[in-house]
Amino acid sequence: MMSTNPQPIDAALIPRFAGLPSFMRLPVFSDPAEVQIALIGVPWDGGTTNRAGARHGPREVRNQSSLMRKVHHVSHIAPYDLVRVGDLGDAPVNPIDLLDSLKQIEGFYQQIQQAGTVPLSVGGDHLITLPIFRALARQCPIGMVHFDAHSDTNDRYFGDNRYTHGTPFRRAIEEGLLDPKRTVQIGIRGSIYSPEDEAFAQDCGIRVIHMEEFIELGVNQTLSEVHNVVGKQPTYISFDIDVLDPCFAPGTGTPEIGGMSTREAQQLIRGLAGLNLIGADVVEVSPPFDQGGITALTGATIMFELLCIFAQSLTTK
Amino acid sequence: MMSTNPQPIDAALIPRFAGLPSFMRLPVFSDPAEVQIALIGVPWDGGTTNRAGARHGPREVRNQSSLMRKVHHVSHIAPYDLVRVGDLGDAPVNPIDLLDSLKQIEGFYQQIQQAGTVPLSVGGDHLITLPIFRALARQCPIGMVHFDAHSDTNDRYFGDNRYTHGTPFRRAIEEGLLDPKRTVQIGIRGSIYSPEDEAFAQDCGIRVIHMEEFIELGVNQTLSEVHNVVGKQPTYISFDIDVLDPCFAPGTGTPEIGGMSTREAQQLIRGLAGLNLIGADVVEVSPPFDQGGITALTGATIMFELLCIFAQSLTTK
Amino acid sequence: MMSTNPQPIDAALIPRFAGLPSFMRLPVFSDPAEVQIALIGVPWDGGTTNRAGARHGPREVRNQSSLMRKVHHVSHIAPYDLVRVGDLGDAPVNPIDLLDSLKQIEGFYQQIQQAGTVPLSVGGDHLITLPIFRALARQCPIGMVHFDAHSDTNDRYFGDNRYTHGTPFRRAIEEGLLDPKRTVQIGIRGSIYSPEDEAFAQDCGIRVIHMEEFIELGVNQTLSEVHNVVGKQPTYISFDIDVLDPCFAPGTGTPEIGGMSTREAQQLIRGLAGLNLIGADVVEVSPPFDQGGITALTGATIMFELLCIFAQSLTTK
Amino acid sequence: MMSTNPQPIDAALIPRFAGLPSFMRLPVFSDPAEVQIALIGVPWDGGTTNRAGARHGPREVRNQSSLMRKVHHVSHIAPYDLVRVGDLGDAPVNPIDLLDSLKQIEGFYQQIQQAGTVPLSVGGDHLITLPIFRALARQCPIGMVHFDAHSDTNDRYFGDNRYTHGTPFRRAIEEGLLDPKRTVQIGIRGSIYSPEDEAFAQDCGIRVIHMEEFIELGVNQTLSEVHNVVGKQPTYISFDIDVLDPCFAPGTGTPEIGGMSTREAQQLIRGLAGLNLIGADVVEVSPPFDQGGITALTGATIMFELLCIFAQSLTTK
Amino acid sequence: MMSTNPQPIDAALIPRFAGLPSFMRLPVFSDPAEVQIALIGVPWDGGTTNRAGARHGPREVRNQSSLMRKVHHVSHIAPYDLVRVGDLGDAPVNPIDLLDSLKQIEGFYQQIQQAGTVPLSVGGDHLITLPIFRALARQCPIGMVHFDAHSDTNDRYFGDNRYTHGTPFRRAIEEGLLDPKRTVQIGIRGSIYSPEDEAFAQDCGIRVIHMEEFIELGVNQTLSEVHNVVGKQPTYISFDIDVLDPCFAPGTGTPEIGGMSTREAQQLIRGLAGLNLIGADVVEVSPPFDQGGITALTGATIMFELLCIFAQSLTTK
Amino acid sequence: MMSTNPQPIDAALIPRFAGLPSFMRLPVFSDPAEVQIALIGVPWDGGTTNRAGARHGPREVRNQSSLMRKVHHVSHIAPYDLVRVGDLGDAPVNPIDLLDSLKQIEGFYQQIQQAGTVPLSVGGDHLITLPIFRALARQCPIGMVHFDAHSDTNDRYFGDNRYTHGTPFRRAIEEGLLDPKRTVQIGIRGSIYSPEDEAFAQDCGIRVIHMEEFIELGVNQTLSEVHNVVGKQPTYISFDIDVLDPCFAPGTGTPEIGGMSTREAQQLIRGLAGLNLIGADVVEVSPPFDQGGITALTGATIMFELLCIFAQSLTTK
Repeated sequence: MMSTNPQPIDAALIPRFAGLPSFMRLPVFSDPAEVQIALIGVPWDGGTTNRAGARHGPREVRNQSSLMRKVHHVSHIAPYDLVRVGDLGDAPVNPIDLLDSLKQIEGFYQQIQQAGTVPLSVGGDHLITLPIFRALARQCPIGMVHFDAHSDTNDRYFGDNRYTHGTPFRRAIEEGLLDPKRTVQIGIRGSIYSPEDEAFAQDCGIRVIHMEEFIELGVNQTLSEVHNVVGKQPTYISFDIDVLDPCFAPGTGTPEIGGMSTREAQQLIRGLAGLNLIGADVVEVSPPFDQGGITALTGATIMFELLCIFAQSLTTK
Repeated sequence: MMSTNPQPIDAALIPRFAGLPSFMRLPVFSDPAEVQIALIGVPWDGGTTNRAGARHGPREVRNQSSLMRKVHHVSHIAPYDLVRVGDLGDAPVNPIDLLDSLKQIEGFYQQIQQAGTVPLSVGGDHLITLPIFRALARQCPIGMVHFDAHSDTNDRYFGDNRYTHGTPFRRAIEEGLLDPKRTVQIGIRGSIYSPEDEAFAQDCGIRVIHMEEFIELGVNQTLSEVHNVVGKQPTYISFDIDVLDPCFAPGTGTPEIGGMSTREAQQLIRGLAGLNLIGADVVEVSPPFDQGGITALTGATIMFELLCIFAQSLTTK
Repeated sequence: MMSTNPQPIDAALIPRFAGLPSFMRLPVFSDPAEVQIALIGVPWDGGTTNRAGARHGPREVRNQSSLMRKVHHVSHIAPYDLVRVGDLGDAPVNPIDLLDSLKQIEGFYQQIQQAGTVPLSVGGDHLITLPIFRALARQCPIGMVHFDAHSDTNDRYFGDNRYTHGTPFRRAIEEGLLDPKRTVQIGIRGSIYSPEDEAFAQDCGIRVIHMEEFIELGVNQTLSEVHNVVGKQPTYISFDIDVLDPCFAPGTGTPEIGGMSTREAQQLIRGLAGLNLIGADVVEVSPPFDQGGITALTGATIMFELLCIFAQSLTTK
Repeated sequence: MMSTNPQPIDAALIPRFAGLPSFMRLPVFSDPAEVQIALIGVPWDGGTTNRAGARHGPREVRNQSSLMRKVHHVSHIAPYDLVRVGDLGDAPVNPIDLLDSLKQIEGFYQQIQQAGTVPLSVGGDHLITLPIFRALARQCPIGMVHFDAHSDTNDRYFGDNRYTHGTPFRRAIEEGLLDPKRTVQIGIRGSIYSPEDEAFAQDCGIRVIHMEEFIELGVNQTLSEVHNVVGKQPTYISFDIDVLDPCFAPGTGTPEIGGMSTREAQQLIRGLAGLNLIGADVVEVSPPFDQGGITALTGATIMFELLCIFAQSLTTK
Repeated sequence: MMSTNPQPIDAALIPRFAGLPSFMRLPVFSDPAEVQIALIGVPWDGGTTNRAGARHGPREVRNQSSLMRKVHHVSHIAPYDLVRVGDLGDAPVNPIDLLDSLKQIEGFYQQIQQAGTVPLSVGGDHLITLPIFRALARQCPIGMVHFDAHSDTNDRYFGDNRYTHGTPFRRAIEEGLLDPKRTVQIGIRGSIYSPEDEAFAQDCGIRVIHMEEFIELGVNQTLSEVHNVVGKQPTYISFDIDVLDPCFAPGTGTPEIGGMSTREAQQLIRGLAGLNLIGADVVEVSPPFDQGGITALTGATIMFELLCIFAQSLTTK
Repeated sequence: MMSTNPQPIDAALIPRFAGLPSFMRLPVFSDPAEVQIALIGVPWDGGTTNRAGARHGPREVRNQSSLMRKVHHVSHIAPYDLVRVGDLGDAPVNPIDLLDSLKQIEGFYQQIQQAGTVPLSVGGDHLITLPIFRALARQCPIGMVHFDAHSDTNDRYFGDNRYTHGTPFRRAIEEGLLDPKRTVQIGIRGSIYSPEDEAFAQDCGIRVIHMEEFIELGVNQTLSEVHNVVGKQPTYISFDIDVLDPCFAPGTGTPEIGGMSTREAQQLIRGLAGLNLIGADVVEVSPPFDQGGITALTGATIMFELLCIFAQSLTTK
């Protein structure tokens, strides 16, 4: 019954600036079994090759999520009426040790997965998606809708480093966690190291929709393409905030001009309703490089958009 | 004759950074009868439920309005040649007392109204429009073109508070100041408290054009709709700066992503020429949350766009 | 026994940027009886006559308090070993209604007082101290050590407004809550409205140590004076962050140059050990005007300094 | 052979934040004959009538250009494989003396021109283009593709000042350096001093595409128009960063809302491939007014876009 | 009689953020004869060799001066009761032409001087003091109390430029406007071009009190020294904001660490009461490099400190 | 002979904002044997437990070092006349791999050491000092003058991590690189994890001068103590910018209020002349958390102060 679900603090009763900022002003839980959708922070940016700062993402996204209300104004989805949602706190991390962090994050998400709870996470840099995949996709490779300015399928950095925020999806494919044929990348752009950068993605069958192709296709055709590619199998949504133009999301480590608008991103996410969704993340929000909290606000709103389609998806399953 | 009208200081003679910043670098008047269009500040944000700061709006919009020149580059309207325009200073306010402020603001606008002068105001938060309406619309309810991310027709906050920046238009309709059937709201978006939020506006006949519908309609069809709804009776334009996407207007109390571009807003305002205009305001510019003055600059430019259609309207009446 | 007391999350195990930011990373409680010292936010600035923003103080001070550790490096006081301390959340407030807010805050502190818990609060503007006094000092007027650039004993603003952040202590004296003869104000400075501004404080016997006198007296003599004035009766410490020079605390509504250094403030607070302390607050931290969180960090550190002398005071009582 | 060309430092080997920031992390040369395309800074804003600061543009664009990689993601042009490119340092300037600066800049570019090297420059304010033209176009007037919010063909400022950042192209036409009939201006907008402002450009035959016309034409038709106007003769590209909307380029002296998006600008520049290009500049990046380096990043990326079409142009000539 | 003097707007009646910001919220006059002390802006930084921006100083100092009240809290001087003070607007300047600006500024101050009015000015860079001296000191060389991190007695820059913000006092001495033997410089510090930098000042007899000597002497001995050097002849006070440590005044073009505190500066200025004062300025406040307005606030407060000793000086003459 | 030494670009000829920013505008060298003192960046913050960002330190300190001139204003030391000084670029680092970075940094400094060149470095976080010691102190443990708010002698973080910016000096002592009996720490303050935090330093004989003791001792007595402790053996100076109060150095990862002033720090460094100096560093400048470059400017000035005593030391050896 609706009334027993956890509810956000009502901003018409208690002002938004009051109280501790949990995600969406929801109650905080420690046992994932208490909720159907878990909002989780992963405050870690140890895979960042240039400007660090995404470790501070979860805290600022929580802060700005105080601005969210309860019902989607277009779909009229009321996620908190449909499902039990809560803030599960932050995954454990080690800012000094990359491999230890990957292991700890994986362990945390195994508990989520074992509880049958769907995780909606906020990074952290994009390498956090790899240990999440290790927990969620052990049985069978999953599909992915990937919003990003970068393909993140590079191989190695700084000599022989295989784990950075530029490599998670090559590793995930190599480890059999991600099915490249059920993966679509949208918004890719920006100068590249070499033409070979894009070869891996193409060779293994990822459907790459560069920003320029997205502009030509438009939202609706892009969505058709996405649904065709990922189909009805289990699918993850990974939203790197740098898919957005820096004017919407200046607070990120590797901005690329000429990006997607929030309008377009919102329309795309709304169009993902109906997929078989098993998890999602919003990554690379980097508060030290943000301007007036606009990137964190955008991250919080994208999280709410995702939450709405997840709540609907869980209800109609 | 043109040459006797008040003129802005010429930036090709005296640089923009010199001198005290009046609106548009115009002379300051204390008697509204000396001008046909009065530029007025209302430095008050006592109705703000979350982030205050719009009280500082008039000063910063004045500051940035030093960048405005004298002739519109598309319509070639030269407002200062057409009508007498001046800076009338700020309406009196009381930062500690909401009801006293509403009364003082109303009194100030009664003098404007009695002088037959058309007010073009800069807030302040959106509650300032209510006392302006009380002064301008006592005889007969007026129509409104309302740019905003929010409908501002909520009922009560924090228990029993009837006057906040989320309620002015419900109050205005209840008081018979605003004709909902001649009211159009453009750009509404963002999560809502409950589906009932939108019921009041719909029930009383306001034409609500959500952001999503605006994107589909486009500028021209939206303008047709606006002209149909408000007709030729007296009409007020209220421009809440948060109708714009936060990338254009970060300095506001309740930003919502996925908003209107300045390009679209300018095209819409230019298309309002020909309405029977009795006043306008630009509200919710909040300098403490602004980034490099961009929101105040936008507010000043919107003000200039409005001034041009008002000057034309007064001349052709 | 020490080990049963609530303890902050250890930053050598879980990094400071992880998790929800409660005050000092302590557990959050809802029943004041569970702790001996309650850390409380009062997110309200409805009494502010110029630049609002202190409503956002508690959230940012909580955020920056993640940088605090557990033991005082000079006194070696370990407050969490000595007493039970917790975050009691925020007092209820109404951003639209001054009198309602005063009533709600008073009610909240009555519960604190009835539980026998000592409140250590973060504002909010300085008017919040009045309802706190109404809860704590109903039986008998209390003494006060008051750090501030301003005496806050003005009478009225904007006509007839008796309650602003410039008037709390005149009201408190009039209401018999504050004993002016046991009150000392340190750091007063800045231009004044008229010579009469200072008459009230002097006439009723407050010991005013202007900034200039403080510079001459130095820390030790000032402390002697303080101990002489307040004696051994119940005493409250009110720390307006604007007592500090704006270089240490730019994020405040009414900065005055030529202020106290944090060094001096810390030495003074450490010298208050041994007083009969019944409560304290840190007010006027205004994040929208802060620079890089430095004022909130200062507020959090002052709070820790106060906590240490309170923990010691409670233990030795 | 490719391998002997100067190459940027590889960010997959040496992180972007390491080392001194030359343009694109390229080697620095002092002899223009060593390169085919010279990247040059002109740190001078002595022609600025309002907000100075573009003098700091070259340093910050160099800094942000560390984010650029080596290959264009759409055209797959690899400029450093095609031609020899290097950082030639900054042109000599005199911040106190306008006429001396014009002379020194001209002298520097004469050396560039005599070496047969193509200059790609970063200002500095827009007046720097005049001495560049004096060096490059002495033999014969050149054509220009001019991106700007302002026509920069005013006559005089502050009495009798003929050289400001609002006048370079009137001077260039008067001096026979610029062929107005082979000049197209794109993105012009914003209020104007008087209707006569635009008369000069129109009278001498410049093709002015106001922002509003550009929106109607779209990118492709605009490009046809550009190619028609400038033809196959030698052509210069001058990119004033204020052609972009302030949300993409807040850090500039004379922002005008309602501007071009970076997406559109990138598409336009890519469409200029095939012109007979003899030089280009990116001007009016003003770091003191920038927000988080976004304008300098945009300037660096525009520079890379230009570099790609220049490299291709030099190779296919 | 006191009541006929111009009075600032009272912030206890009209909030500080309301209205146009004149200096100290005083009435604006155009005829210098109407006041005894004229507050004047000189928005010009054409003599700046590094970071421009002081042209924006007068506007921001006016803005922050809204925080000033009417009576000095230590001396109890009430300047507006003692003398007629008003805002005389800004001196005319030409941002493109150094020599023309010097001439225009001089002309403006000649009018001030002929009216027998004492000017208290806000720059602008330090070169503005030269034309002020040309107007005030034509009859007879004056003495000066000079607060600065730099001696400003260099000879030439960038080849042969004799007029920059690093040279005004060498020029003033050469022109017989400034009596070096009645000049004292306080706070000089920071690395120098060569040991000869200091030779000129020493050779011509200026009493240079480096920062290090000031620390040793302390405020009182420094003041004795100042009174000894300047004596009872006409004396000017020039306060370069960079005499203060950058923590108090980050918004300036040439910051030097290890500077004076505002506390010390205020004590020094208060100790100048009794001098034969003929004018003063506060220069090098550069808003684009300021942090949250702190430098402009400091500039406004220094201006108020100066105003108090000038008001007293005029009254007791 | 003096004239053959590398010299900074002269700001009286080429303005400070022009050209690529090397340290002190000196020439860049790749062979350490070409200079006697090498200015080196170590852009790495992989040991940071909370707020990263010091990786960007070298670039911003280089940028702000453009403000330095050539001669010390107190000592009149002219370092570039005394010794050959140059910018040696940045040490190689790996942002993803802590142990690899320690190894690469050590290797780089071995070359410096083998060339007999004295390194003056800019971090980077404080862990960089460990690999520098490994290169410089292999033969024999060195002494150290250590400016810091933190002792940096902790043992382990996040379980078992032995290498963080909180542990370098415990490791250095364990490895026999640092002689604790010849080590003095100045400025230690801020809350601590436990009383045991300080036990290690005390037990092994480090002379710890807490901030509070420093205030009591004053500069001169502190200097006596320092000279007594470190004596005439080889000594390193490590200057963590957080020894300064956050008002002077907000841009750092672990600010602690109540810190040292730049004035005091400068006096202390000047008093270190005469020590047997073998190297120095300035660490923990973190540009993403800086305000207007003030921390980087301070870092650059501290570097110049150090350079002067090193130049003198090398000359008089």
